[in-house]
Amino acid sequence: MHPTYFYPKAYPELHRFLKVKKQSIIFILVDENTQKYCLPKFLQTLESDVPLEIIEIEAGEEHKSLETCTGVWNALTELGADRKSLLINLGGGVITDLGGFVASNFKRGIDFIHVPTTLLAMVDAAIGGKTGVDLGPIKNQIGLFSFPKLLLIDPGFLETLPQNELKSGLAEMLKHGLVYRKSYWEKMKDLSKLSLDDLPQLIEESVAIKSEIVEKDPTENGIRKILNFGHTLGHALESYFLSNESKTTLLHGEAVAVGMILETYLSSEICGFPKECLAEIKNTILQSFPKIDLEEADLEPILNLLKHDKKNSYGNVNFVLLKAIGEPLIDCTVKREQLIDAFRYY
Amino acid sequence: MHPTYFYPKAYPELHRFLKVKKQSIIFILVDENTQKYCLPKFLQTLESDVPLEIIEIEAGEEHKSLETCTGVWNALTELGADRKSLLINLGGGVITDLGGFVASNFKRGIDFIHVPTTLLAMVDAAIGGKTGVDLGPIKNQIGLFSFPKLLLIDPGFLETLPQNELKSGLAEMLKHGLVYRKSYWEKMKDLSKLSLDDLPQLIEESVAIKSEIVEKDPTENGIRKILNFGHTLGHALESYFLSNESKTTLLHGEAVAVGMILETYLSSEICGFPKECLAEIKNTILQSFPKIDLEEADLEPILNLLKHDKKNSYGNVNFVLLKAIGEPLIDCTVKREQLIDAFRYY
Repeated sequence: MHPTYFYPKAYPELHRFLKVKKQSIIFILVDENTQKYCLPKFLQTLESDVPLEIIEIEAGEEHKSLETCTGVWNALTELGADRKSLLINLGGGVITDLGGFVASNFKRGIDFIHVPTTLLAMVDAAIGGKTGVDLGPIKNQIGLFSFPKLLLIDPGFLETLPQNELKSGLAEMLKHGLVYRKSYWEKMKDLSKLSLDDLPQLIEESVAIKSEIVEKDPTENGIRKILNFGHTLGHALESYFLSNESKTTLLHGEAVAVGMILETYLSSEICGFPKECLAEIKNTILQSFPKIDLEEADLEPILNLLKHDKKNSYGNVNFVLLKAIGEPLIDCTVKREQLIDAFRYY
Repeated sequence: MHPTYFYPKAYPELHRFLKVKKQSIIFILVDENTQKYCLPKFLQTLESDVPLEIIEIEAGEEHKSLETCTGVWNALTELGADRKSLLINLGGGVITDLGGFVASNFKRGIDFIHVPTTLLAMVDAAIGGKTGVDLGPIKNQIGLFSFPKLLLIDPGFLETLPQNELKSGLAEMLKHGLVYRKSYWEKMKDLSKLSLDDLPQLIEESVAIKSEIVEKDPTENGIRKILNFGHTLGHALESYFLSNESKTTLLHGEAVAVGMILETYLSSEICGFPKECLAEIKNTILQSFPKIDLEEADLEPILNLLKHDKKNSYGNVNFVLLKAIGEPLIDCTVKREQLIDAFRYY
C-alpha cells in the first residue's frame, strides 16, 4: 500500500521523498479549478530545485476519458518526461484516477504521488490504488491497480471547495460507517451537530477505515468488495445521468447517496436488515442529499447499465448488501422485481 | 514470470489451465492474417465448452495504437466481458503487445494468454511481460509490465509465415547471441548451413536466453537493458520510416538489424570491441538483411527521435554497447559525431 501522511507532517515527508529520489522533471497535473485554487498554495510549500512543469486538463467527470489521457501523454512526451520523472496529481478524484492511470502506463510506469484536494478524493478516490478512466458512459472501465509512492492529505484545500463537492465526500464517509464501523456511522449521522473543526479528525478515521479494508484485499477479490455498497446502482445512475441530455449530471456522491438508500432497501428485503435502521438511513441521507429527479421511464435504461458493473461474473449482477450496520454481505443476487421495488421505495 | 510451454506440451497445458480457471467467456484476439492462417488450426486444438468470441483487428504496426485498443475495449464491453473473462492473443508482436495491454487495463485487469504466431513474437515480443502500444510515431510509449498466465509456443504456426517475417525474428535471435551467449551466435551466424528442422531447437534456446535475462530483472532496472542492443537506433529508424511517406515501412527486425550494425560500430569506437568481429557481424547481418535506403538528409530527423527512447534519463541517450560478443555494457553515452560516423560506416 501507499504511505499516507496528513497535514502538517505531509509536506516534510514529501520533501524527504523528493530529496532521496532525484527526479529528472516533476510534473504537476491539475484541472482549471485546482490550477486556480490549489496550485498556488501547493507551490508555496514545495521545496525542490528539480525542473517543474504543470499540465492542465479540463475539470469534470466528462473529461475522465482516454482522449484526455492521450493529451496528457503527448504533453509529457513533448515536455521531455522520462522514466525518472514524477507526476504529482493535485486535484479531485478525476485527477487522481486519471493521473494514476496515465503515470502507470507511461513508458511502462513512472512514479506518481496523490495530493487530493476534494473531500471525496481524500476519503475515497485517492486511497487504495484504483486508477482508471471511463469508456464512453461506462465508469472506470479502463484502468489498473497501481499505488502512488505517497498520499498526502491536507484538509486545508477544502476551504475553497464548493458545498456540493463537500457532500460528495460525505456520502463515502457515511458508507464507511455503514459497511465497516457502526460507531463511525453514529458519529457521522448527526451532521447538524458537527462543525468544520471536526473534519480533519473525521477524515483521518475514514482514511483509516478504507486503508484497513484495502490492505486486507488490495485487488478486490473478497472483503474490498464491501466498499462497493451503494455503488452498483450508484454507478448506473451516474452513467445514465451523465449520458442523458435532459438530466442534470449527478456528482458521484449524489449518485452513491441514492444508491445507498436503494441498496439498504434491498438489504431489508433480502438479508433481514432491520426496518427501523432503513428509515434512519434514508432520513439521514435525504437530509444532506435532496431527492433526485427519477421517473418510471428512467428505470429500464438504468437497469440495463448494470450489466457493465465490474463486480459481475458469469452474467450475474453482484450486490453488496447489509445484514446490519457494519455487517456487509458480498456477492448477493437480486431479482429484477426487487430492483424496481427499491426505486419505488426511494 | 509466465509459465512457458512448447509444442506438443503446450496444448495439454492450455486445456488444464482452462479447466481449472473456469472462465466466463474466452476471447481470442486476431488480426486479418492470423484469423485466416492461424485461427482454424488453433480452434481445432481448443477443448473448452466456455462461450468463445473472436475479436479481429487490422494487421500491422500502424494499428498498434490507442484507437485500436479503444475498439477492442468496446468490443469486449459489448460482448459482455467481465473480470472472469480470458483474452487469448493469437498473433505476432502487435497482437501480443496490444492484447496484453488491453487485458491488463480492462476492468483493472483480466487474465490473458499469449500464443505467438510469428518468429519475432516467439523469441522476443511475447516473452517478458512488456505490453503496450505506440503514441503517434513513438514506439511502445504507452504500456506497462504485465505477465500472461501462459505462453504457448508452437513453431507449426511459422509454416504460413512469409519469408521476410521470419527474418524479423532472426534479428532478435542473432541479438540474443551477441549480448548473452557467444556459442549461440556461432550457431546462428552460419545461416546457410541451418535448415528449417533446426528451428524449434533454436527457438527454444532463444526463449531460454531471453527468459533468463528477464527473470533476473523483470522491470528493466539493470541487466534487462542489454536486450535493447540494436534497438536504440533501431527504434528511431523504425519510427522514422513508419512516419515518412517516401520510405517503405521497415519490419521491426529489419530496423534492429541495421541498429545492431550501427551499435556494433559504436562499440568498436567506444568500448574496444574487436574490429575483426565488427566486420564479421556486419557481413552476417547483411547476408540476411539487404541494405536499406538511407540518405544524408535522413540522419537529422532520426537522431532527433532518439530523445524519446525509454532508456533515457536526465536528458542523456543511453546505449547498450558490446565489449566483446556476449559481453554487453549498459548506460553508455555516445557523442553526436560518433553517431553520424556509425551511419557513414553502414
